Amino acid sequence: MEGVNMKKSEGKIVVAVDESEESMYALSWCLTNLFSQRSNSTLVLLYVKPPPPVYSPFDAAGYMFTNDAVKTMEKYGSEMVNSVMQRAEAVYSNFGSSINVQRVVGCGEAKDVICGIVDKLRADTLIMGSHGYGFIKRALLGSVSDYCAKHVKCPVVIVKHGEEI
Amino acid sequence: MEGVNMKKSEGKIVVAVDESEESMYALSWCLTNLFSQRSNSTLVLLYVKPPPPVYSPFDAAGYMFTNDAVKTMEKYGSEMVNSVMQRAEAVYSNFGSSINVQRVVGCGEAKDVICGIVDKLRADTLIMGSHGYGFIKRALLGSVSDYCAKHVKCPVVIVKHGEEI
Repeated sequence: MEGVNMKKSEGKIVVAVDESEESMYALSWCLTNLFSQRSNSTLVLLYVKPPPPVYSPFDAAGYMFTNDAVKTMEKYGSEMVNSVMQRAEAVYSNFGSSINVQRVVGCGEAKDVICGIVDKLRADTLIMGSHGYGFIKRALLGSVSDYCAKHVKCPVVIVKHGEEI
Repeated sequence: MEGVNMKKSEGKIVVAVDESEESMYALSWCLTNLFSQRSNSTLVLLYVKPPPPVYSPFDAAGYMFTNDAVKTMEKYGSEMVNSVMQRAEAVYSNFGSSINVQRVVGCGEAKDVICGIVDKLRADTLIMGSHGYGFIKRALLGSVSDYCAKHVKCPVVIVKHGEEI
């Protein structure tokens, strides 16, 4: 181990973005500290939509109602994806045009989807905010970043809003 | 937030080192990904010795025994500091001579000391292995890296042994 030069990462660096300001800070930290003009790494912007609600097709009235609700939520989800990706674009467009960017949108439980995609992409690093994906859910189920830090194989950077960056 | 260039860190980057191979990987990750020839950052190698055992000065026999034990542990602790710092030196000496290195040795509960020193130094980033500071203690009290990721204000990088780096 000692004295061995580690090869600089030229693979995929995943930033989990969501509607939080903190995830945009995480993106900025990543761009400032891990990307340079010489870097051949790919920035993967990963957004995870919540899973669709479960409904019963046997209850006609319920189905009608839920179907509308599903459509509304799907529309809301798509708008949220666009909104988050546009904010992310505004952040990374300021850091130079030489960055390879890949957008990935997952659907499901954030912690599972993030870990699954990081493994699938064989990402070099995962960067995320510490409080993403809902305050109440986090209080009930624990932090998504805690879970990901435990379960992904690659180094995980946890960035917090409020620090001077 | 959007479109604002974040200033590249030129402050202190703390790597918590211990006797684990993982913490040396964490150091390598830090050097490879966060330091470059242009960087003016200071690498702070932080080692935390365990707190001295508590003994009673009123029990003469016990005192004698414990005093010897304390001396032995202190000697062991000093040897461990030297051993870990030498391993760290072997790692960073291969990454170029332009790195400013500061060695800090703390004493006490690792999680409290690490968080305290990171705050005191106003560090930009903390890098650490995920399993450091004792497997059994970790199983009983929770991971030091979990605690630090929650409690320090700056970004925390958690590096794991076993990944391809």
